[in-house]
Amino acid sequence: MSVSALDTVSAAARRVARELAAVDTAAKDAALERIAEAIEARAGEILEANALDVAAAAGETAAIVDRLTLTPERVAGLAAAVRDVIALPDPVGTTVRRFELTNGMPAHKLRVPLGVILIVYEARPNVTVDAAALCLKSGNACVLRGSSLATNSNAILLDVVRGGLAAAELPADAVQALPESRAELERFVADPEAADVVIPRGGEALKKMLLERSRIPVLAAAGGNCHVYVDASADADRAVAIAVNAKVQRPGVCNAAETLLVHSDREDDLLPQLVAALEAEGVELLDGEDAWATEFLDMKMGVRVVPSLDGALEHIARYGTGHSEAIVTEDEAAAERFTREVDAAAVYVNASTRFTDGGEYGMGAEIGISTNRLHARGPVGLEDLTTTKYVVVGQGQIRE
Amino acid sequence: MSVSALDTVSAAARRVARELAAVDTAAKDAALERIAEAIEARAGEILEANALDVAAAAGETAAIVDRLTLTPERVAGLAAAVRDVIALPDPVGTTVRRFELTNGMPAHKLRVPLGVILIVYEARPNVTVDAAALCLKSGNACVLRGSSLATNSNAILLDVVRGGLAAAELPADAVQALPESRAELERFVADPEAADVVIPRGGEALKKMLLERSRIPVLAAAGGNCHVYVDASADADRAVAIAVNAKVQRPGVCNAAETLLVHSDREDDLLPQLVAALEAEGVELLDGEDAWATEFLDMKMGVRVVPSLDGALEHIARYGTGHSEAIVTEDEAAAERFTREVDAAAVYVNASTRFTDGGEYGMGAEIGISTNRLHARGPVGLEDLTTTKYVVVGQGQIRE
Repeated sequence: MSVSALDTVSAAARRVARELAAVDTAAKDAALERIAEAIEARAGEILEANALDVAAAAGETAAIVDRLTLTPERVAGLAAAVRDVIALPDPVGTTVRRFELTNGMPAHKLRVPLGVILIVYEARPNVTVDAAALCLKSGNACVLRGSSLATNSNAILLDVVRGGLAAAELPADAVQALPESRAELERFVADPEAADVVIPRGGEALKKMLLERSRIPVLAAAGGNCHVYVDASADADRAVAIAVNAKVQRPGVCNAAETLLVHSDREDDLLPQLVAALEAEGVELLDGEDAWATEFLDMKMGVRVVPSLDGALEHIARYGTGHSEAIVTEDEAAAERFTREVDAAAVYVNASTRFTDGGEYGMGAEIGISTNRLHARGPVGLEDLTTTKYVVVGQGQIRE
Repeated sequence: MSVSALDTVSAAARRVARELAAVDTAAKDAALERIAEAIEARAGEILEANALDVAAAAGETAAIVDRLTLTPERVAGLAAAVRDVIALPDPVGTTVRRFELTNGMPAHKLRVPLGVILIVYEARPNVTVDAAALCLKSGNACVLRGSSLATNSNAILLDVVRGGLAAAELPADAVQALPESRAELERFVADPEAADVVIPRGGEALKKMLLERSRIPVLAAAGGNCHVYVDASADADRAVAIAVNAKVQRPGVCNAAETLLVHSDREDDLLPQLVAALEAEGVELLDGEDAWATEFLDMKMGVRVVPSLDGALEHIARYGTGHSEAIVTEDEAAAERFTREVDAAAVYVNASTRFTDGGEYGMGAEIGISTNRLHARGPVGLEDLTTTKYVVVGQGQIRE
C-alpha cells in the first residue's frame, strides 16, 4: 500500500467517524444484526477461505493452528458474538455527570465515541468480527490489522462485515483493513492523526514495537507476570485450587499466574502439596531470578519462598507487571495490606487471577485487558471505547 | 545532570510514589498546611530570589515578566492556593463502582494514585507550588521541570515545599526538580519508566517536542483554536457580549476564541455590530485560511461568514482543535445539532468559551486542560490524577 493509500484509509476512517458519532443505537444494532445474518448466510465461503489459511499454516504450532481454525460451530459463534454486542448497552450519549458551573449554568458530561481505533492482532479470525462489532456499537470507525496467517479468513470476514454495514445503509468504511506487513503498520502509526488509539491484542513483539514507535496512544498492551501469594494463614485446599487454576486452566493468557510465592511458615507443610498438585498437572516449577522475571505463557511456573508478607509485596513490586495479583489468606489484616499495597489492575483475595476478564466482570465482550495507568486499567469494555464531552447551556453568560 | 543523576530522580520518585500511595488524607493535608506555613514564613526569601529572576528577565515581554513576578500579595496567594487544595476532597481510595462478578464475588473499583507525574511548565513560579500541592493531595510523586527564567524562584519554592514535607514527616522526594535544559528533558522523557505521565503546561514548542519525543504518555497538551459561531437566530446583545468576552477577557489563554463565525443571514445587521464592538476593544479582525488556522493568543481574531449551520460545523471540524466551541442562537434545534455534532472537550450554547476551567467547573484547582481523547478531556482536576484498581474478594473461587 502506498503512503497515499494509507492516508486514504485514515482519511476515510476520520470522515466516517464523524458520521458514526451521530448514528443512533437502533441503527447501529440493526447493522450488527445484518452483519450476524451475513456471517450465517456466507458461512460456506468463510470456511473455504479459512481452509486456505489453515492449509498454508501447516508448519505452525498446534496452538496457532487451533486459534486460526474456523469450524461451522465457530462460525455460528462469530454470529452469536455479534448478537451479544447488540444486547450490550450503548455507551454513546449516556450522561456521566450532571452538575452546575460555579455561576449556576447547567452542564453535563456525556460519553462520545473515541473516533478512529486501530486494532492490531494475531492470527485469530474471530477478532476481526469481535473488534468490528465493539467499535461499531461504540460509534467508532475501526481499522483492522490482522496477521498474514489469517489473510484469506480476514478478507472474507471483512467483506461480510462491510456488506452487513452497507445493507443497513451505514458506511462500509466504518470497518477497514490495513495490509499485514510490519512496514505498513510502522508507517501508519508514525502519523499521530491516523487514528485516535491503537489497541494491540496479543503478540509481545508487536506490542513492544507499538509502544516504541507509535505516535498514536497505545491502549491495553497488557503483559501479565501475575503472582499467587500463599500467606502464612492460607487455607491449604484453597491455596492448591487457586494456584493450580491460576496456572493451568489456560496457561497461554495474560491473567494466568507465572510465579507462586509461599510464606516460609508454610514451606514444610503446604509447599510440598502445592508442588505436587502443580506437577501432577504437568507444570514445571522453576526457581531463581530468570524464572521470576519471565512471563512463561506456558506450563512453567516460577516459585519462591518469601519470609513474610512484606517479602511478597517486595517481590511483586519488583517483578509484577501490574496485571492481576492474588493472595490466599485467612488473615484479614494480611488481605487488607495486600489489596492496599499491591499496585495492579486487579487484586484478588482467595480467588484465581484468571477472573480478570470482561465477561467475568459483567462487561460483556472486552476488546483487551489494559495495564496502562491512563484511561482504562483492567478489562477494556465498550465504555472504555468512548471519551467525554462537556455540554454547557447558558443564557448569554460571560466570564468576569 | 548526568544520566545516572536523572535515573536517581526517577528511582527516588518511584520509591516515594509507592510510599505516598499509602499515606492517608489527614497526613497529606497536614503536610500541605506545613507547606503553606513555610511559604508564609519564608516570604522574604522567596521575594528576594524572585527579584533576581525578574532582574535577569529585563529583555522579555511584559506578559512574561508579569507572570514571572511575585509580590507579597502573590506570595500570600501561593499559600492560599495550597490551603484551597487542603479543602478539596481526596480522590484516593474512593470507590468508583461496586459490583459483583458474574459468579457473585463482590468487587469494587477504587481510585489509586497515578504514580509519578512530570510537570513541564513555563516561567510561572506559582505552578511550582500548585502542581506540587495537587500531586501530593492525589498521592502522586512529582518531578517539576520549570523554566530557566524562573530558576531562582523555583529553587527557593522547591526548598520551601520540601521543607514542609519533611516537617510533616513525609518524604521530601515527593517533589523533585529536573534541570531546565531541553536536552535533559528529552533524555528524561525518552525512558518510558521514568514517570507515568507528563503534563505540559503552556509553551507550544515544548508541547510539540513532548508529543513527538516523549515515550511517557502526555496528558493535557491542549491547543485551543476555539470558535464563537453566531447563528441566524442569535440574540444580538448576547452575540456581542459573548464574542467580546471570549476574545478579549484574557486573550493569551487556550480557551480564548480565535475565530468568529457568522451566519450569512446576519452579515448585514449583526456582523457590523460585532466588528465594531471587537475593534473598540482593540481586536484586529483577519480573514482567510491563514487566520482561521492560527491560534493567535493575542488581540487578533479570524472572522468568516458561513452560509449555514452546516458551514459552521464544517469549519470547526476542519480548523478546530477540539477544545471549546460556542454557538449563540435562539433556535433549539440549532443548539441541539451544534452540541451533538461539534467534537470538542466543551461545547457551549449562549455562553463564552472562557468557562472551560477547573475553577469554573467546580473542580477547584486544575492542573491543565486536556484536549486528549484518552483518560481526561477538558479541565484536569484531582480525580484525573488517579487511576483505578479492582479489588475482588473471594472464598476460594476458581475459574471453570
